[in-house]
Amino acid sequence: MKLIRFGKEGKEKPGVQLEDGTRIDITAFGEDYDEHFFGTGGIRRLEHWLDRNRDESPIISQSERLGAPLVRPSKIVCVGLNYAKHASESGMEVPKEPVLFFKATSAIVGPNDDLIIPKGSEKTDWEVELGVVIGKKASYVEEADAMDHVAGYVLHNDYSERAFQIEKQGQWCKGKGCDTFAPIGPFIATADEVKDPNNLDLWLKLNGETLQNSNTSDFIFNVQEVVRYISQYMTLLPGDIISTGTPAGVGLGFNPPRYLKPGDVVELGIEGLGTSKQLAKKYH
Amino acid sequence: MKLIRFGKEGKEKPGVQLEDGTRIDITAFGEDYDEHFFGTGGIRRLEHWLDRNRDESPIISQSERLGAPLVRPSKIVCVGLNYAKHASESGMEVPKEPVLFFKATSAIVGPNDDLIIPKGSEKTDWEVELGVVIGKKASYVEEADAMDHVAGYVLHNDYSERAFQIEKQGQWCKGKGCDTFAPIGPFIATADEVKDPNNLDLWLKLNGETLQNSNTSDFIFNVQEVVRYISQYMTLLPGDIISTGTPAGVGLGFNPPRYLKPGDVVELGIEGLGTSKQLAKKYH
Repeated sequence: MKLIRFGKEGKEKPGVQLEDGTRIDITAFGEDYDEHFFGTGGIRRLEHWLDRNRDESPIISQSERLGAPLVRPSKIVCVGLNYAKHASESGMEVPKEPVLFFKATSAIVGPNDDLIIPKGSEKTDWEVELGVVIGKKASYVEEADAMDHVAGYVLHNDYSERAFQIEKQGQWCKGKGCDTFAPIGPFIATADEVKDPNNLDLWLKLNGETLQNSNTSDFIFNVQEVVRYISQYMTLLPGDIISTGTPAGVGLGFNPPRYLKPGDVVELGIEGLGTSKQLAKKYH
Repeated sequence: MKLIRFGKEGKEKPGVQLEDGTRIDITAFGEDYDEHFFGTGGIRRLEHWLDRNRDESPIISQSERLGAPLVRPSKIVCVGLNYAKHASESGMEVPKEPVLFFKATSAIVGPNDDLIIPKGSEKTDWEVELGVVIGKKASYVEEADAMDHVAGYVLHNDYSERAFQIEKQGQWCKGKGCDTFAPIGPFIATADEVKDPNNLDLWLKLNGETLQNSNTSDFIFNVQEVVRYISQYMTLLPGDIISTGTPAGVGLGFNPPRYLKPGDVVELGIEGLGTSKQLAKKYH
């Protein structure tokens, strides 16, 4: 099943994208895609509801804005440097255990919303990433059980301001949590739709030119390892997102580096998880 | 006004602590202390409601558990090394601009809940901190306007596992977001109650021995500067917490370092913001 949310920013309603691409409004189901939904078997409840109500559900226009396909989660935990080539292009060593950081959830926007380049930014960069949506509270989880805690998968562009991230004092969060820096979606594919999250093509284009093109089989730490690892340090709640890191091809890795300017168009996609597209704009 | 929440974990209800220390249940007010409450003038609405309903509101037993005095916020933004002496005891330089990091909101517990020392931890440490609760969306705020964005103040113990924070690869979040690592409360004092947040005594005792004892006038970056600074990098939402850093006297700063073991009792307080107390326990 493909979960979507649609409508104006801040007023999104839940929907489902059917196999033929039709999008239906499931407001009548009476729940939104939040911690309670994911944590209490909401996906199964929705499937049963759809069996009876699919045909009566209103169809959403394809031109309707998509929001992020879940209600703001408690956290986005990101894995840094999780593809060997990207670690090397960033001038960092391949990590021996996952590097973790948080992305502010206030950065979340819809998959095709504009990217707002922050005031004073000269180094806004892109990062196509596989997002893992947690379906069941995860604390001290074993690798063998990790997949039981996953509700689904989603496309994420982990925008990053490199000067804010690296050249300012301290931690990376200054360059990772700017508003609009987390376009999520178009949809959450429930776990049953994704045969192997550790073997998915992913790519990103800037103004039509392919700059990232890889496969999650190049992960240094795969989805199971990452879920286990994070759960040793904090409880992952239903609806939380793990963003699993980006492959080579970010702006920082070019010589000279390439960064976004107003008018640039970023398109990205992951096999089975759809595509998204952001237009870069100046803050005003 | 002093906002509290009380009752079983996960089932907390809102209340108010009156000037004489009496705690009253304000469930009948119909709102909880969340983003909507702080962001839409809820404090004023509650004041008006109390004028009419104070005397009819049920009194809460003093033995009732207190929860954190607000609903889980979108984020806790922490300022690192914001007191010169603490930077030096941590072996770090005094920062030229605020060092920021996030604390997982899943770490939030009530002010007197047990501290659970995580599995494998040998370096769990304490940090008394002044928390600032945001009352109005803050993006690119000027220092002169910063205080308009503050709803109130709250006591926070920013527990930190130093091996997870510093000796693991990458960012600090592994040692800052463990479950129970953010006891918050006993109450939020609304901004009108705190004459000057940049001049408050704060202290922490371990098993009765005073280990931290300072005043927020020793801030490197004061509340106004910190609100302005963070708002350049991300939008602060109503209900978000800024934790403003800890003064000298943490376990890491002793020679040899001192860390928590099961059975230890940590008590802390800030002038005008009450006290809290946590019993350290082993994870089981």
